[in-house]
Amino acid sequence: MAENEQQMIQRLLAPLASGLDGAMGLLDDAALLTPPEGCEFVVTMDTLIDGGHFLFDGTPQCAAQVARKALAVNVSDLAAKAADPFAYFLSIALPAGHEAWLEGFVSGLQTAQLDWHLWLAGGDTVATQGRFTITITAIGTVPNGRMIRRSTARVGDDLYVTGTIGDAVAGLSLLQGSEDRKRSWRKRLGEVSTARLLERSRTPTPRVKLIPALRRYANAALDISDGLALDASRLASASGLAAEIDGAKLPLSEPIRSLIQSADLSLADVVSGGDDYEVLAAVEPQNAHAFEEMAKAAGQSVSKIGRLSQGSGLTFYGVNGETVALKKLGWDHLSPSSSQAE
Amino acid sequence: MAENEQQMIQRLLAPLASGLDGAMGLLDDAALLTPPEGCEFVVTMDTLIDGGHFLFDGTPQCAAQVARKALAVNVSDLAAKAADPFAYFLSIALPAGHEAWLEGFVSGLQTAQLDWHLWLAGGDTVATQGRFTITITAIGTVPNGRMIRRSTARVGDDLYVTGTIGDAVAGLSLLQGSEDRKRSWRKRLGEVSTARLLERSRTPTPRVKLIPALRRYANAALDISDGLALDASRLASASGLAAEIDGAKLPLSEPIRSLIQSADLSLADVVSGGDDYEVLAAVEPQNAHAFEEMAKAAGQSVSKIGRLSQGSGLTFYGVNGETVALKKLGWDHLSPSSSQAE
Repeated sequence: MAENEQQMIQRLLAPLASGLDGAMGLLDDAALLTPPEGCEFVVTMDTLIDGGHFLFDGTPQCAAQVARKALAVNVSDLAAKAADPFAYFLSIALPAGHEAWLEGFVSGLQTAQLDWHLWLAGGDTVATQGRFTITITAIGTVPNGRMIRRSTARVGDDLYVTGTIGDAVAGLSLLQGSEDRKRSWRKRLGEVSTARLLERSRTPTPRVKLIPALRRYANAALDISDGLALDASRLASASGLAAEIDGAKLPLSEPIRSLIQSADLSLADVVSGGDDYEVLAAVEPQNAHAFEEMAKAAGQSVSKIGRLSQGSGLTFYGVNGETVALKKLGWDHLSPSSSQAE
Repeated sequence: MAENEQQMIQRLLAPLASGLDGAMGLLDDAALLTPPEGCEFVVTMDTLIDGGHFLFDGTPQCAAQVARKALAVNVSDLAAKAADPFAYFLSIALPAGHEAWLEGFVSGLQTAQLDWHLWLAGGDTVATQGRFTITITAIGTVPNGRMIRRSTARVGDDLYVTGTIGDAVAGLSLLQGSEDRKRSWRKRLGEVSTARLLERSRTPTPRVKLIPALRRYANAALDISDGLALDASRLASASGLAAEIDGAKLPLSEPIRSLIQSADLSLADVVSGGDDYEVLAAVEPQNAHAFEEMAKAAGQSVSKIGRLSQGSGLTFYGVNGETVALKKLGWDHLSPSSSQAE
């Protein structure tokens, strides 16, 4: 006889909850959560659907990647708010045939939650005749009053970004592009760099190492998921300010530099591409050096890419300091077309 | 130009968050939640998919019903744990054409959250080419240590159930049945009773009125979503006990009595039907009277339907006290067939 829901939960999912008392071994109908003394909860929720947010091929390996990505995009939100990952709730709508790869999915969660120090606390599993869909509600903790918001940047703050920008959109472009493009990019970049871009588009790395530096020095922050330009303009707008970004200062990986040089990508593509899952932070100039040092000591690269000023909107400067008009700023989730520049 | 995601969120969803400071007007990437002094959080998560958990016809009226049901099944879980509703996170995967009914959906949420005293705190909206899917993570509060579990019932406890059992499964049977059945049931029951059964299957009523009585007198509880027999056996099993249910004592509405009399339904159908969203509670006999009185004073009907004893498994007694073997106990979410009796 096929395994029923409760047996599946106990065999596969309950081990993911073993480090959290309040999950009660996934044996009750709800979890019991209390923030640690002097802390409050930061809560975020993200849904990923097969065909849009990931491309699922039905293998256990791909299922593990998908699981990691689903947890990563939620933990990325927590990290940008300077919240330490604590627990998550998982809802999965499973298409027929999941018996073949569900263990891969769970192993992906297991590795990811060990990397980022959080535990499964509960959720729901349903069968679907539609698409494989994953919703995660992730819960982090911050000392009381210390969540980093997007609306609290100040005039004159420097804008910092972690890691490199544009790898994910280039990877997606490879995944979804023609065979010709794949061949030509592979030839130009080599196998290793090509694989790196694909990897960046499949499995983001939440910048949890930056949490202490954010908590100490950031006036405002968010994670870049819909395009650096769009998310920077959101942070500026929420803070009642204007954002300026210097194209010459964008942190770019070698393959992205190479693709820009060959005109396969433009700087505009890079700043509006989305799926970077890097942190954008506003830091007062007087704290900039200390912020950089603390990030560096934690093993997290950060780059100063611009600043916030009086006014509204986003100004993007090209590599020679010229103003560049962006046709789009990033991605809107409800529309197949992208979000227009203001 | 079509409304973008952020504009839609601010116009339609932000008003649902207006009573909760930590939701920050849905303008940030995460919510900030702290339990009230002396309380802890109880968290539950449920997903509903069009075609399975509800049948969506694309009208604003139906969207409002669906929204209410999605919130109801989550609040039902909180109520059964004796947790006061506090906040919820909403993820919706919206199919094309949602512009026509999204306001109906939001109005359904608005009415429901006013009825049950909780606020929207955050979530995610995504477009889908698949099915309309709703996931809610609901958060309630209990005084420290006072969550009612399913595993803490004691030998000799009486089993109580709220409301009436079987209306929802009869309503579903009507919705999914042949035109012949619809005509014959309508004729037998009349329009009012037929409408009542349909209503029960479409929009459950979470038993929030029972929360104070549960908190004071229940040793264990859960909400009945997959069938009284299955959920009673789960409560008994989690507590290391056996459950006995007296068919003669089941609270049945007039239409259900009539359908049983005409052999259109059996008692076995009623106890294994699912979707009741009533609370099943284990109460010590010495507290039974006080529990009944407190529930009655709160306007919530409760019925004593059985007891917990040493051993394991579920014994179901028919109306004449005979033991009735149940072919199935209830519904398993991962399997199209139902959960077998042990």
